[in-house]
Amino acid sequence: MTSLFIIGLDYGSESARGVLIDTVTGEQVDSCTHTYRHGIMTDSLPTGRPLPAGWALQDAADYLEAAQIILEKLGNNRHIASIGVGFTASSPLPASADGQALSTHHPDEPHAYVKLWKHSAPQAYVDEINRRGDHFLDNFGGKVSGEWLLAKAAQLADEAPHIWAQADRFIEAGDWLVWQLTQREVRSLDFAAYKAQYTGQTGYPHHLVDGLEQRLTTPYPVGTAAGTLSNAWRQRTGILGNATVAVAVIDSHVVLPAVGTMVPHTLVAALGTSAAYLFLDDTAQPLPTGIEGMANGAALPDVWCYEAGQAGFGDILAWFVRTFPRSDDMAESFRLYNSSAAALAPAQTRLLALDWWSGNRVPFADAHLSGLLVGLTLTSTSTDIYRALLEALCFGARAILDYLQAGGVSVQHILLTSGLSQRNPLLMQMMADVLGHAIKVPNIQNPTAVGAAIHGAVAAGIVADFATGSRRFGARDFECYQPRDANTQAYQPVYQQYRELMADNAIRRTMHHLADNLRRPQ
Amino acid sequence: MTSLFIIGLDYGSESARGVLIDTVTGEQVDSCTHTYRHGIMTDSLPTGRPLPAGWALQDAADYLEAAQIILEKLGNNRHIASIGVGFTASSPLPASADGQALSTHHPDEPHAYVKLWKHSAPQAYVDEINRRGDHFLDNFGGKVSGEWLLAKAAQLADEAPHIWAQADRFIEAGDWLVWQLTQREVRSLDFAAYKAQYTGQTGYPHHLVDGLEQRLTTPYPVGTAAGTLSNAWRQRTGILGNATVAVAVIDSHVVLPAVGTMVPHTLVAALGTSAAYLFLDDTAQPLPTGIEGMANGAALPDVWCYEAGQAGFGDILAWFVRTFPRSDDMAESFRLYNSSAAALAPAQTRLLALDWWSGNRVPFADAHLSGLLVGLTLTSTSTDIYRALLEALCFGARAILDYLQAGGVSVQHILLTSGLSQRNPLLMQMMADVLGHAIKVPNIQNPTAVGAAIHGAVAAGIVADFATGSRRFGARDFECYQPRDANTQAYQPVYQQYRELMADNAIRRTMHHLADNLRRPQ
Repeated sequence: MTSLFIIGLDYGSESARGVLIDTVTGEQVDSCTHTYRHGIMTDSLPTGRPLPAGWALQDAADYLEAAQIILEKLGNNRHIASIGVGFTASSPLPASADGQALSTHHPDEPHAYVKLWKHSAPQAYVDEINRRGDHFLDNFGGKVSGEWLLAKAAQLADEAPHIWAQADRFIEAGDWLVWQLTQREVRSLDFAAYKAQYTGQTGYPHHLVDGLEQRLTTPYPVGTAAGTLSNAWRQRTGILGNATVAVAVIDSHVVLPAVGTMVPHTLVAALGTSAAYLFLDDTAQPLPTGIEGMANGAALPDVWCYEAGQAGFGDILAWFVRTFPRSDDMAESFRLYNSSAAALAPAQTRLLALDWWSGNRVPFADAHLSGLLVGLTLTSTSTDIYRALLEALCFGARAILDYLQAGGVSVQHILLTSGLSQRNPLLMQMMADVLGHAIKVPNIQNPTAVGAAIHGAVAAGIVADFATGSRRFGARDFECYQPRDANTQAYQPVYQQYRELMADNAIRRTMHHLADNLRRPQ
Repeated sequence: MTSLFIIGLDYGSESARGVLIDTVTGEQVDSCTHTYRHGIMTDSLPTGRPLPAGWALQDAADYLEAAQIILEKLGNNRHIASIGVGFTASSPLPASADGQALSTHHPDEPHAYVKLWKHSAPQAYVDEINRRGDHFLDNFGGKVSGEWLLAKAAQLADEAPHIWAQADRFIEAGDWLVWQLTQREVRSLDFAAYKAQYTGQTGYPHHLVDGLEQRLTTPYPVGTAAGTLSNAWRQRTGILGNATVAVAVIDSHVVLPAVGTMVPHTLVAALGTSAAYLFLDDTAQPLPTGIEGMANGAALPDVWCYEAGQAGFGDILAWFVRTFPRSDDMAESFRLYNSSAAALAPAQTRLLALDWWSGNRVPFADAHLSGLLVGLTLTSTSTDIYRALLEALCFGARAILDYLQAGGVSVQHILLTSGLSQRNPLLMQMMADVLGHAIKVPNIQNPTAVGAAIHGAVAAGIVADFATGSRRFGARDFECYQPRDANTQAYQPVYQQYRELMADNAIRRTMHHLADNLRRPQ
């Protein structure tokens, strides 16, 4: 009997990862990672053309190269039943009607490339929308984030009208990849609902950007089959059979069925470069103040999902360790910092940070806020600062939990996932202590890619539904962290100060002034 | 003909320095530096007994060892006409009636040691005095600093009554050293006026600390001969002749005649570990808001001298370079940071710091404030942070200049002195740009010790007055830095943000909360 496999693809910010799962045993058989050729382009295009500050682009061709390498490595000469795709969002690109990325034709035009989720340049375009206010924003905290598709479309239309004119489509990179693999443009409700403010009742808010309407298409629920892998891709990769390709899913959402979040009242956080928080509930509440958005059936069918996030998370720690290394080896630097930070007691550093290195999502949705560190004295050590950053990340998480609970939702389970969660027990215990809540960390490799594979399995009918897919292919055991009361109490007054600084208008005004210097030519 | 020399001694925080000057040529013939055996004791006593956080002690025996080594090196077998002494302040110690430091008898008792100027533990004692208010504080900004003698006496009396009972004297270390050298207890008006709030009309504010009155003695103007070097010291060092020893002077004041500040309307800043600002005027104004104190004839005869300062200066830069070194060699690390920081434009870092690592003197006189850094993003570099610290030091200086000018005084000349001023042209140009004012930096080695020598020369009658001493032995040429208009304009909005943060009560409240964690046992 021939084995049958499913593949999950996880397109992250720096690299793409794939897993191969045996449909019978449910085990991961193989996995592989490919780092994008051009990575995140913040300084210049591949042609050498320099980019303004605040820009973060990607080359869509890098995604195809990654698909080629990963699918061939995992699928060559194997029967593949399905392929699921998780992708960063909102990372849209302009494309022609036949699906060509415009960067292919305009390699020296910044606006022809993918604007990565963290591309923060278009904040000014949505500032104006946010000032005006609009009823369609009711489910999205009353604000459009500069990271969302609308903002990026507005910037493109305004700053590069010739590219906008040639862009038959403006499409999330995840949807675009599915289009490339299947030759069918089938967009995902997940991207549309959370990143383009689409609802089944009102459609897209076209009216906010001239010409947006004809560049978008109606989205489909997650778990839908977008099509099958095209002949060209089957030949190119050696994959056998008619692999079903599922509609794409936001990477932070696609992970859900892999980590055991099929239970309502669960808060799940994907702690990666940034942190994405999803709260799953079976009934709807009015959107809690400060929370970014909510939608039904977009991340998982028939489930209300509230979304929130921290704009920076692991990248802040990586910034610190890279800027002030203790070893030539970054992993060793991390180990040394974690080890010395673990020796300190809660609040012992007498430092406090605001974790806004990449701006703040909750509650301000403001990419022009920035990091702050206070309490510095001549006895502050580099370990103190590192630990203050860890604590600030936990305080940011606590603020999100508090906003949710203040909105009347009942958080009964907290799940933290990602490599960082498994690599950094110090941070996980700190999370339990700061949140004052038990934390579960699923013991699973490549959870995002596994979640994508489950989406594919559902779309292909390999499993009856997400709950079955979750049991068959998802996490089977969990690390549990219990809050320690003494620590929870020690953190409380420092968290109170975190909230005081967060609420301080003068600080945010200063951050805006400093960010204005960024936008002003030097 | 036998040559005749004068010696100046500069007792700093980490080491003492001496210069030998030929009275005929006016040239420095020799100099030497001795680092204190026990340095600044912040963690433990020489006996190993641990110290609470915030403490900073010195061992008076170290001062005598330094005097022995320096005076012998410079004076052995030479005719020395005079010795002048500059000393950190307020750095008081308890002593018996015969001049013995109580630490000699109580080596395991922290309160028996010298409380160095930066010993910040007694802030709480003066917080209460400051809340009450007292008319004697009118000339001192309405506040007693935790660094001043009164605060340290209050802490000693309260926390170690058995030591206080044995302390026949509570005396500045500079006065104590002169007592040791001459066998005569002759205190300096300079310490008394600026650090113990003495005035000729009202005396000391004895009423604030029980039993303080009998532990202090009437002070004498600067330039007074305290006595001559004792026989014991002459034998011990090989010094020939009856060297006159002048009353001691605060180190930041003693420098004045050495650097050319005999002209009224001059602001002189001694930029060392901390920064001391003196504004010299021939008439008195009401004390400008925010400025720390003013006195007539204390720093120099017949001159009104307004005092202000930054609690941290060079030590903040040293902290950064020590905490985040670029080389095993600290001087090389400094060179590398200065070189890369010099390549950045004003305000380019988009970072802003509050330079309060050791608290703030002007306008808050509050040792429990702390350093702050805001504007951090993933693109911030270690050079950006270093440069932001340099800029913050300049903004702190600008705030002092602005407080003075808002008080109606006319600052016509600005002089910056110290090793840092001569070593760091980047910082000096930045000062000129941020202050929007021409800066003069005297080209003179060991200016503080030379100033001390001039005080000795005046006391011994070698020169008729300070102006003559200044011309004969002081700086003869100056480096001039002119402000560059474009830079001055570029810094202006960032300085405005510095003032906004400075004025933000919420930030200072948070700093106090963090400092409270310091005082709470872990």
